[in-house]
Amino acid sequence: MFAATGLPFDDIRALFGRLTEPDQEARARAALRNANLLKPAGSLGELEEIALFLAGWQGVEKPAITRPIVALFAGNHGVHAQGVSHWPMDVTQMMVDLFMQGGAAINQLCALHGLGLKVFDLALDIPVGDFTQEPAMDEKGCAATIAFGMEAIAGGVDLVCLGEMGIGNTTSASAIYAALFGGDVEDWVGAGAGTDEEQHARKVEAIKAGLALHASSLDDPLEVLRCFGGREIAAMVGTIISARAERIPVVIDGFVVTAAAAVLHKIDPAILDHCLFAHVSAEKAHQKVLDTMGKKALLNLGMRLGEGTGAALAAMMVKSAAATHSGMATFYDVGMPEVGEVPPCQRKN
Amino acid sequence: MFAATGLPFDDIRALFGRLTEPDQEARARAALRNANLLKPAGSLGELEEIALFLAGWQGVEKPAITRPIVALFAGNHGVHAQGVSHWPMDVTQMMVDLFMQGGAAINQLCALHGLGLKVFDLALDIPVGDFTQEPAMDEKGCAATIAFGMEAIAGGVDLVCLGEMGIGNTTSASAIYAALFGGDVEDWVGAGAGTDEEQHARKVEAIKAGLALHASSLDDPLEVLRCFGGREIAAMVGTIISARAERIPVVIDGFVVTAAAAVLHKIDPAILDHCLFAHVSAEKAHQKVLDTMGKKALLNLGMRLGEGTGAALAAMMVKSAAATHSGMATFYDVGMPEVGEVPPCQRKN
Repeated sequence: MFAATGLPFDDIRALFGRLTEPDQEARARAALRNANLLKPAGSLGELEEIALFLAGWQGVEKPAITRPIVALFAGNHGVHAQGVSHWPMDVTQMMVDLFMQGGAAINQLCALHGLGLKVFDLALDIPVGDFTQEPAMDEKGCAATIAFGMEAIAGGVDLVCLGEMGIGNTTSASAIYAALFGGDVEDWVGAGAGTDEEQHARKVEAIKAGLALHASSLDDPLEVLRCFGGREIAAMVGTIISARAERIPVVIDGFVVTAAAAVLHKIDPAILDHCLFAHVSAEKAHQKVLDTMGKKALLNLGMRLGEGTGAALAAMMVKSAAATHSGMATFYDVGMPEVGEVPPCQRKN
Repeated sequence: MFAATGLPFDDIRALFGRLTEPDQEARARAALRNANLLKPAGSLGELEEIALFLAGWQGVEKPAITRPIVALFAGNHGVHAQGVSHWPMDVTQMMVDLFMQGGAAINQLCALHGLGLKVFDLALDIPVGDFTQEPAMDEKGCAATIAFGMEAIAGGVDLVCLGEMGIGNTTSASAIYAALFGGDVEDWVGAGAGTDEEQHARKVEAIKAGLALHASSLDDPLEVLRCFGGREIAAMVGTIISARAERIPVVIDGFVVTAAAAVLHKIDPAILDHCLFAHVSAEKAHQKVLDTMGKKALLNLGMRLGEGTGAALAAMMVKSAAATHSGMATFYDVGMPEVGEVPPCQRKN
């Protein structure tokens, strides 16, 4: 779906002018079904909202989630050279190996809950540029990485949970938030996968240096992405875009995945209409990010691991919403008075 | 385990003097394992706490949840005659039939998530007494119902999610909270499965009348249970007690199940050490109840259906906690420096 013509970013921008929309007629039929399910009105709370959201995007009265995946992107970061993390950079590759071997947290959750896992490592031997010295990516490389991320939904999936791994990538994410939303840099910076006071200070300094170096690019969200990286965030931008084109709902994980969503939100909040926000990360600034974007997360379990672990847990809520909505009996089924005018037997599906 | 000798409540009270305790040595080994899992320390948030909780109660370093059930108790309530609900009482039986046929919300969640479902209907044709006129139960009946509930764990289970169904039972639950914790009756009363303003006022009046009628019994939590009912709440008290005897963790659902827990909390908060609280119900007073008991719920999804639906979703978090803790690789596995003094190869399990 990504045609390699013209200036790369222009091709991507062109997609935002023709966003798919949910099927409002299917959503309305699902709402009527929901009103007739054998339960007090509204008593399944947010599960009911999710069921209607799914009905709209899937275009059916009874949505189902049968092929959910976690798409996990890994990248390395030149800004690591600024001493922003206490983990060595080769931990990114070690974790990718562990994902392949099945030993990471996300592997256990995928196995337990029936989620497919696709891992994409993005040239880990060639970290993106150190954003305190140069842009993380050039436009061609950034656009190509976005296009790569678009392929994550190939093969047929009906729910995409986004996850990431990348030593140093909370520094990129914080820089993106500071660039997109402004305010004090300190307010967007947390401990990431682990920092002491000195590393934290270096993280803040690196971001301030990056913001100064790239000051002329901060008005354009795709330029912000290009300047601060990393490739895993760019790839997730691509997955969100291609999932929208295919009307596939996306579950946004925590602090770093939300940075990919934030780039698109800044371009146009409507681009994220097919996205759910999984959880409030314990990474300090995540609640502020969600508040800034006007998003409410499903879970709040004090997690800050990444890998898509929060999204995998939220996917269970999404599957639960589809299962209850589509599997429950209705008032009609038991001969009780119905809500609304159209009896289920006359409804299209 | 319930010997029918002496005064019934005395037999039950005797159990509270010999509570089982978690295996602290196993919990310590699990904590050492947790510190060595391949992730930033603490990054799985509440899942880590749950894993250590399970390790203690199961007495193993690597807990597993392989036989979880939802135990769903249904009862009818004489106080329904006071006009406290807009649902007719025979909806309780209709829902029990639906549980058996697989058409309710809880059936979909159990099927999706691999939870067994045991439904117990408690003499639905003979509602407990109307607590505005008489005690809901006599002591012998109440004790027998508690003993009945103790049997819910028979057959071997390793996690019990409690659920309930009973038209009118939020009125009993609110009465129990008002009796146990005092304060304004209005503060403990919500909309239940559905009330209009007039029904809500009748609910408050019924509870006030009950509190006046049974004023001499309010100091004894088991007497509070006996006076206000219903049988499903008494049975759940029994399940919580017998699960503790067998060191089986219990997941408490919403507003009505919490009333069973509250009776035991008032006797001794330590009786609930093996219990997790699933979610904050949208039933108005539930957050106040949790705050009063000093409990934090895992989820907050605006649900107020009952049936154990919130507990079933929380059980997924419990299974996720066991799966990540017990299945992840450790620093030792990949040759990285360990935390703590005992290498995994020398640990008992």
